[in-house]
Amino acid sequence: MKWTRKDFLDIRSLSREELEIVLDTARAFKDIIQRPIKKVPSLRGKTAVNLFIEPSTRTRVSFELAAKRLSADVVAVAQEGSSFKKGETLKDTALNLQALKADYIIIRHPAAGAAQFLAERLGAHVVNAGDGAHEHPTQAMLDTFTIREKLGVVSGKHVLIVGDILYSRVARSDIWSLTKLGAKVTLVGPTTLLPDCFREMGVGVTHDLDSVLPSADVVNLLRIQHERQSRAAFPSLGEYVSIYGLSRERFRRCKPDVLIMHPGPINRGVEIESELADGDNSVILQQVTNGLAVRMAVLYLLGGGQSEAL
Amino acid sequence: MKWTRKDFLDIRSLSREELEIVLDTARAFKDIIQRPIKKVPSLRGKTAVNLFIEPSTRTRVSFELAAKRLSADVVAVAQEGSSFKKGETLKDTALNLQALKADYIIIRHPAAGAAQFLAERLGAHVVNAGDGAHEHPTQAMLDTFTIREKLGVVSGKHVLIVGDILYSRVARSDIWSLTKLGAKVTLVGPTTLLPDCFREMGVGVTHDLDSVLPSADVVNLLRIQHERQSRAAFPSLGEYVSIYGLSRERFRRCKPDVLIMHPGPINRGVEIESELADGDNSVILQQVTNGLAVRMAVLYLLGGGQSEAL
Amino acid sequence: MKWTRKDFLDIRSLSREELEIVLDTARAFKDIIQRPIKKVPSLRGKTAVNLFIEPSTRTRVSFELAAKRLSADVVAVAQEGSSFKKGETLKDTALNLQALKADYIIIRHPAAGAAQFLAERLGAHVVNAGDGAHEHPTQAMLDTFTIREKLGVVSGKHVLIVGDILYSRVARSDIWSLTKLGAKVTLVGPTTLLPDCFREMGVGVTHDLDSVLPSADVVNLLRIQHERQSRAAFPSLGEYVSIYGLSRERFRRCKPDVLIMHPGPINRGVEIESELADGDNSVILQQVTNGLAVRMAVLYLLGGGQSEAL
Repeated sequence: MKWTRKDFLDIRSLSREELEIVLDTARAFKDIIQRPIKKVPSLRGKTAVNLFIEPSTRTRVSFELAAKRLSADVVAVAQEGSSFKKGETLKDTALNLQALKADYIIIRHPAAGAAQFLAERLGAHVVNAGDGAHEHPTQAMLDTFTIREKLGVVSGKHVLIVGDILYSRVARSDIWSLTKLGAKVTLVGPTTLLPDCFREMGVGVTHDLDSVLPSADVVNLLRIQHERQSRAAFPSLGEYVSIYGLSRERFRRCKPDVLIMHPGPINRGVEIESELADGDNSVILQQVTNGLAVRMAVLYLLGGGQSEAL
Repeated sequence: MKWTRKDFLDIRSLSREELEIVLDTARAFKDIIQRPIKKVPSLRGKTAVNLFIEPSTRTRVSFELAAKRLSADVVAVAQEGSSFKKGETLKDTALNLQALKADYIIIRHPAAGAAQFLAERLGAHVVNAGDGAHEHPTQAMLDTFTIREKLGVVSGKHVLIVGDILYSRVARSDIWSLTKLGAKVTLVGPTTLLPDCFREMGVGVTHDLDSVLPSADVVNLLRIQHERQSRAAFPSLGEYVSIYGLSRERFRRCKPDVLIMHPGPINRGVEIESELADGDNSVILQQVTNGLAVRMAVLYLLGGGQSEAL
Repeated sequence: MKWTRKDFLDIRSLSREELEIVLDTARAFKDIIQRPIKKVPSLRGKTAVNLFIEPSTRTRVSFELAAKRLSADVVAVAQEGSSFKKGETLKDTALNLQALKADYIIIRHPAAGAAQFLAERLGAHVVNAGDGAHEHPTQAMLDTFTIREKLGVVSGKHVLIVGDILYSRVARSDIWSLTKLGAKVTLVGPTTLLPDCFREMGVGVTHDLDSVLPSADVVNLLRIQHERQSRAAFPSLGEYVSIYGLSRERFRRCKPDVLIMHPGPINRGVEIESELADGDNSVILQQVTNGLAVRMAVLYLLGGGQSEAL
């Protein structure tokens, strides 16, 4: 099977085979980025526009590096100082970028569906770098890649996703990716951040972290996103930490080789005790490296590259 | 005839022959940017500094892409975070960029004459990307290029420029370019935004759009620039729209093949009804593409490139 | 002797031989940046991250140009819009940049020791672009390079450093560099900005500019850094100018071939009279050019380049 889609918008609409193409291609790029010379000429002469309407250093930099290592030119358009201030619509911004012959538009936007909206209107390849509380598909790919790399397979593994599920595009994309690849997923969080309707996605839902920790192969801790909550979802941060924070005490109840994951940036002492974030079970920084490999793979595949050519 | 100027500062001082060199060179670059690989090595090893002391996403991105597609390195210096905050003068900033051996300085500045000021003091090629209400010469070149491309010739065509003429550097540059190339230009707008003295530039002046619409080959709608008006120039936006906005009703009185132009970003429902902006007569997005070709041509010519070498 | 250090953090810990390697390598790069094609392929495929947690246009642009002219890819991370806003620590930002396989991290930071902190934790080459009031080692190298270039030698020359010594990382780095290379250094400034303890660094200290001007080979005027002073260090700017500003009157008492230096951006009419800043004795703009050569040399040496290969 070969990759045929123009855009990379979500995980939900992808087949298991498509997810595996991305993961296999990313593995080839992971080898490349370990070399002293990390650059390949695949996208020479191509232009990628980083259209970040919501601030994000790490995802922007990851995509910028991915594109540059494929030898593409990268132009950054941030909310700050952009025509959005002059009241231009997303559609007009997009049509303009298309008229400038951008080959790729990598968009982060506070509104769910923004990437899809562009993809339907533009010839350029659109990559969703996070749209509202909808999806963040390259994050799911890098999480899945990391689990597969560390545990050999995804299928049959028990993955906990802990924290602010309701507002999290990471959680949604991870759920789609992991369940399509056969993992058992359990969501964990306070009722205010984890309504029961998530069960419809084919996952377990619990509000009691301690009851599921011992059976977990992976604990994926989501960032508490103060900025996306419109009202207080839990009484106090201290209370959240005492119930859902990964402490050394709780860690002792985990399997000895449990993987600890976090999409970053971590709040040390909130979602996770600092020592555990830096410990042997943590793959948080390997997620970052894998994100680069996954994003190179996505840009490469959308542009018509084939995994076997690498 | 060959291009001999070091800088690209205005349209007013250029001859008809010089304008035609730019237009002819831009035509060659338009072919290049339609290719899958849009890059040429003409400016390899050269450095362009984008010095934007006034925010502008689209012009900045257009110049950045133009320079990168010529294989130049581009460094961005924006007002935000620049030494201007520390009270440095334009002259000192310029001398510093020169000392850093910048080959091109592309400047947007709120003060008329800023580009000229730099050009007189620096060995680097200076390109005016808009200086106050003075000139925006690459915009005029792309407007003129678009008319010539669509209508075959500029000479003898009737071009309306509608709106906020008084504060518009686009209007001034367009007037110089179009009249030098033999077009008939008529300015249209409220008396507060279009004083009679503009007649001295060799153009028609009217405050009645409906009287001139039927004879127009091109209707160029300027953006209402709230930010550059120091006081209200018309009673209300609604009143402006009713008298000068291009509605479907008004459009019916135009020639069937009239070109509708706008420098962007458009205020949908103000200068133009949304449907017309997206309609068959609109060349607004082609203007954006042509802007890229024109800017590549200008950078290429200033650097000593010859049209016939392309 | 060959360069062996992974990082470029300060001048204090460098030997005279190491300083001379940098200066000699910079001389080779100065030749290169005078050429029409200023680019060399030394760092092709390498990535430099410009991590500027304190705003600085000129130093950031200088490093960006230096890296690009060595053919490295450059990614900018500024305080504005970075994850720092989300409360991420410097350590976590650094670990993330490392995970993204950055080869160089060029850091400016308001805290003394920030560059050292990163260097101890990361495999990447760390370059200190100014850390609090501690050091700004590439500035010292460019100042020293300029003196050696203009006067032939540094040893035995009398260099005044005038102004805000207490808060100046430039002064500290200059003192180390110049004294290691055998210059006689005298610090000049008001007691509030120049405590006596600086004598321990092996330099002269005086509060009377006029008494030392006649014997100076170099007058290096520091910028009055309003932003780094927590309280008023002198009664008024006018009084500072009258006592420590370099006026034409004072200039007449200098040696005829005295070098006037300033790290920029200059406050014309404060540290120096405008005419003198632009006069024949001023090497302020040559310092800027030399900064580019020095920064290319530092990046090149850290990456394993050898001066004789140029």
